Amino acid sequence: MAVPFTEEERRGVYRAIYERRDVRAQFLPRPVPDEVLERVLDAAHHAPSVGFMQPWDFLVIRDRATRQAVNQNFECARRSAVAIYQGEQRELYESLTLAGILDAPVNVCVTCTNQRSRGSGLGRQTDPAVALYSTVCAVQNFWLAARAESLGVGWVSIFDFEQLRSTLGIPPAATIVAYLCVGYVSGFRPQPELEEKGWESRGTLERVTHFERWGLQGKGSPK
Amino acid sequence: MAVPFTEEERRGVYRAIYERRDVRAQFLPRPVPDEVLERVLDAAHHAPSVGFMQPWDFLVIRDRATRQAVNQNFECARRSAVAIYQGEQRELYESLTLAGILDAPVNVCVTCTNQRSRGSGLGRQTDPAVALYSTVCAVQNFWLAARAESLGVGWVSIFDFEQLRSTLGIPPAATIVAYLCVGYVSGFRPQPELEEKGWESRGTLERVTHFERWGLQGKGSPK
Repeated sequence: MAVPFTEEERRGVYRAIYERRDVRAQFLPRPVPDEVLERVLDAAHHAPSVGFMQPWDFLVIRDRATRQAVNQNFECARRSAVAIYQGEQRELYESLTLAGILDAPVNVCVTCTNQRSRGSGLGRQTDPAVALYSTVCAVQNFWLAARAESLGVGWVSIFDFEQLRSTLGIPPAATIVAYLCVGYVSGFRPQPELEEKGWESRGTLERVTHFERWGLQGKGSPK
Repeated sequence: MAVPFTEEERRGVYRAIYERRDVRAQFLPRPVPDEVLERVLDAAHHAPSVGFMQPWDFLVIRDRATRQAVNQNFECARRSAVAIYQGEQRELYESLTLAGILDAPVNVCVTCTNQRSRGSGLGRQTDPAVALYSTVCAVQNFWLAARAESLGVGWVSIFDFEQLRSTLGIPPAATIVAYLCVGYVSGFRPQPELEEKGWESRGTLERVTHFERWGLQGKGSPK
């Protein structure tokens, strides 16, 4: 297990990280084979978790009627969310494709059950959010493994979450963390769509790196 | 960019996911070169973020006096946390090494600033936690890139967080999401330490996978 990564294996890790995209509009109807989806779900299931509690559940949705109900929920929430934008920004918002719920053949809802007794509370007493954080690590594992399998993933966060819970039968103890659209794609964009379309540009690493104490920037190393 | 991953590149991604460990006790004093740390931080900086807001900051700590103060904070919080355990579980808790703050030559504190105007609120109106989730995606990118570089990472969550904030000079607007111990290691354990020592065992993927609707398990595919 302690064998160093080959150059090509290491390149694979960085490719997954740099070439991963939040996919909204490039999904293909081509089915996702069960064994590929299972590999990606198992990658998610091997995320780190506080006290080894593994607080996540994965709900796999392929049924079109369910996805249609979820999509109506999204469309309604999206229309409400437009209210804070005006002028050009509003036009841009309205032109963005924000979800591929119907185009992607597979949707995966990822939840977190904090009350789970697994792990016996280890590491959870001083920050109750850590179970949620473990679940997000599972989402990111899913996303990177999917990229290595040439599968696109888009994380949709614009919902009436109580309605989504009801549609999917999710019990009150489980928090909905992520709703993912998953499928093969016509291509992965060279840069994030929000950057390409002028919504936001990438900040530099320098601006968000501090050394020894908050606010000491660019003085230490790495610069 | 749409070139499929080679078999070896894909294996690298899965190796990083399956061979990643939450390292507490195997750190070596060997320094982490600046260029390696920068690659891993840049991987973190390329995490997905809601509305492309990139809400994270990374505070790199090498100074021993600062790490000693952080370690005292941890030791104190760890002693308080023991109170919920009794008997054998308490003995096991006390025998676990839970942090490598002093042994790891580099510590990285990762924070999230939700008020950041970047991204103009896109995707953040219906779930205020999504900025935190973006920050956790950055942590997981860091962890996997570190594994590919043969660097161990341990996420410590047992702190008095207000005291940690004060020690590191972190402003009130930034939420402390993760405190990571980072360094080369004597080896990566074949299984998680908490499993090896009998604290908790790994659950099956089947138990946490549902199909079409919560509670429908093992009937769909993948099984």
